[in-house]
Amino acid sequence: MHPYSLTYDEALALDAADELASFRDAFVISEDDLIYLDGNSLGRLPRVTAERINQAVVEEWGGGLIRGWNAGWFQSPSRIGEKIARLVGAAPGQVLLSDTTSINLFKLVMAALAARPGRTVIVSDELNFPSDLYILQGCIHLLGGAHRLELVPARDGIHIDPQDLASAIDEHTALVSLSHVAFKTGFLYDAPRVTELAHRAGALMLWDVCHSAGALPIELDAWNADLAVGCTYKYLNGGPGSPAFLYVRQELQESLLSPLWGWFGQKSPFAFELEYAPAAGVGRFLASSPPILSSLAIEIAIDLTLQAGIQPLRSKSISQTNYLIALFDQVLAPLGFTLGTPRDPARRGSHVSIRHPDGYRINRALIEEMNVIPDFREPDNIRLGLAPLYTSYAEIWQGVERIRRVMVEERYLKYPFDRLAVT
Amino acid sequence: MHPYSLTYDEALALDAADELASFRDAFVISEDDLIYLDGNSLGRLPRVTAERINQAVVEEWGGGLIRGWNAGWFQSPSRIGEKIARLVGAAPGQVLLSDTTSINLFKLVMAALAARPGRTVIVSDELNFPSDLYILQGCIHLLGGAHRLELVPARDGIHIDPQDLASAIDEHTALVSLSHVAFKTGFLYDAPRVTELAHRAGALMLWDVCHSAGALPIELDAWNADLAVGCTYKYLNGGPGSPAFLYVRQELQESLLSPLWGWFGQKSPFAFELEYAPAAGVGRFLASSPPILSSLAIEIAIDLTLQAGIQPLRSKSISQTNYLIALFDQVLAPLGFTLGTPRDPARRGSHVSIRHPDGYRINRALIEEMNVIPDFREPDNIRLGLAPLYTSYAEIWQGVERIRRVMVEERYLKYPFDRLAVT
Repeated sequence: MHPYSLTYDEALALDAADELASFRDAFVISEDDLIYLDGNSLGRLPRVTAERINQAVVEEWGGGLIRGWNAGWFQSPSRIGEKIARLVGAAPGQVLLSDTTSINLFKLVMAALAARPGRTVIVSDELNFPSDLYILQGCIHLLGGAHRLELVPARDGIHIDPQDLASAIDEHTALVSLSHVAFKTGFLYDAPRVTELAHRAGALMLWDVCHSAGALPIELDAWNADLAVGCTYKYLNGGPGSPAFLYVRQELQESLLSPLWGWFGQKSPFAFELEYAPAAGVGRFLASSPPILSSLAIEIAIDLTLQAGIQPLRSKSISQTNYLIALFDQVLAPLGFTLGTPRDPARRGSHVSIRHPDGYRINRALIEEMNVIPDFREPDNIRLGLAPLYTSYAEIWQGVERIRRVMVEERYLKYPFDRLAVT
Repeated sequence: MHPYSLTYDEALALDAADELASFRDAFVISEDDLIYLDGNSLGRLPRVTAERINQAVVEEWGGGLIRGWNAGWFQSPSRIGEKIARLVGAAPGQVLLSDTTSINLFKLVMAALAARPGRTVIVSDELNFPSDLYILQGCIHLLGGAHRLELVPARDGIHIDPQDLASAIDEHTALVSLSHVAFKTGFLYDAPRVTELAHRAGALMLWDVCHSAGALPIELDAWNADLAVGCTYKYLNGGPGSPAFLYVRQELQESLLSPLWGWFGQKSPFAFELEYAPAAGVGRFLASSPPILSSLAIEIAIDLTLQAGIQPLRSKSISQTNYLIALFDQVLAPLGFTLGTPRDPARRGSHVSIRHPDGYRINRALIEEMNVIPDFREPDNIRLGLAPLYTSYAEIWQGVERIRRVMVEERYLKYPFDRLAVT
């Protein structure tokens, strides 16, 4: 007998009523007993992907050899970029699949700072993903130190107060660079409002949508965003380390220059001229050959997200995070956990962080003894990621039940406090 | 009846005597009739690769999910880097699989220029791959224009005269950045001698080994090279757009800084600190998540090159380029072709360029009518790449015979002069 009034039967009933439930069958579920709550770090494998990759390897590479480039590989950055564009509210001609999130961020930040001469401040926040902050710091270092990075604090550790952000943005601000959804707390910005704040001050606005692409509505054009980057291996299920994407607003493209002058961004790469001249449009932000096998894996995975539709996915995600927080209040709060995520769904992405002083050990016990995979983020956050394409309510219920058991059975106590690398 | 005194039977005899001939069976040969002379652009598919990729997709990603990172993916840049190190004469701790050639070049050039303050010249040559030159030009642009790029000319269009290079390097030279083997002419530098020239002037030496890795001996440590970059999709058979590698000499690592401050190059990425601090050693030149599927494809392909051994591969490559040039002299020179590649094998890589004013149309006719795949490089070069792991003497003989037929039957005349993208 368990202590829930939110019963397992209710979870099953929610699954039965879920109009997206059948999408779970489109993914490889190799262990029925595994509770996978880390789709926000690495999405599951779509069933069609293995077949598509095998075809790409055997037919396109093995059979087509170099001919594969003219048969579709050359076009893959823009072709797959346009698919992603439909998920991030971008009209054609603005999105490319390319490199990694950090490298794309570098390209766009360097271009943005050059486009705002005389302005010396980059505004970000302390909830931003550290790699984003490192890239910003590296850009400042590279430019000789005349710029500085201003990090808006999260006073309660979870949210950024819009007033604090508004105070930080002024006539010295060259660029506002923020994550749409914060990697640790799941805090979700009011993106149109923040973009307007940046523009009113004459700054450029860059969004990192790694933690929202595929799970939340993103409307880069409608927000008037200038620049954006994002990854494809989380909610887009592109596979480990699959290439990232970038967005450059149409009107800005001809005035911005990538710092990475590679031949794929040259205006005529196969003329083999000795002087660089940038390609027209967003294509100038390419540098060199994309990793084709990893790219084609994304291309097919995205179709599942497009079929399900972002609005239904967002509705399910809100319902599931609400459900998880209700379970948290009843079951986990009494066991010493605190909630590390906004309670207002309008300010929340698709993962829920729960905090506990023994979080690291609890996370290890969940993985090693209970067949639950969340992930841990220093100093005390266990992130529970809900991927609305395949996470079920039953999985959420069972995940919470197993966390409860780890606590009441004190199964985490035998694990040491020393850290392992856990993504 | 054909006009050769170098007969087809002789080609078959050379294959029968070739101690590396059996390696051809390790590759997928999906069309027996296809003469593939473009392994210097995209290497063939090793038979084991399709199986390995399928395993990585189904077992590591589908089954292991996020656990794959701790089960080997995190270590892949250095693990695969160390395999490559054995092919480029590098002791452990100096080579990483990472990003693309152009991006690695950007990282190393920016680091090198910062390490040679007051010196304002980068020396390269006009045979270098244009993307390398573009990256160098981009670095100079980014640094405000105080630097300049000096390109040593190829007076005869094929070779760089060592005297010309020596004259270009002086006390203003910060960096000498060259391709070990030139992409178009196949010209091969005397790398130890050039490296010594750079060092005598106090400059750093960077080698791009894209066109030599896997086909020629490379001894980065013994040459005293400072920096190197290279790709894995040519003679290393890593697949389309597979990640590149970089080398940073041990003694330089702590004094050089990547301009791309990503979390994979942070000293403790999972501490999620807000301030960047570079990792010890070459690891600081990583930026972010590597594309795992494309990375694992390389890892297994390299074993074939290691098994064959670079010295036997080089011996076969020299024998094959000599053989091809003998056929050229007898068959192709009388048809109006000129040789675009050094005759001295000590100054030649593993491809042979043949030049003809109608080169573009001839190349198209070879691909579309004769089932021969060379590639074309502006303005008049047809490159014939010989990959000693799988190219046979019979293939070379037949390739030349089909070029002869295209000429004497005038089958190229119907093709237009306008260019298509051809790698």
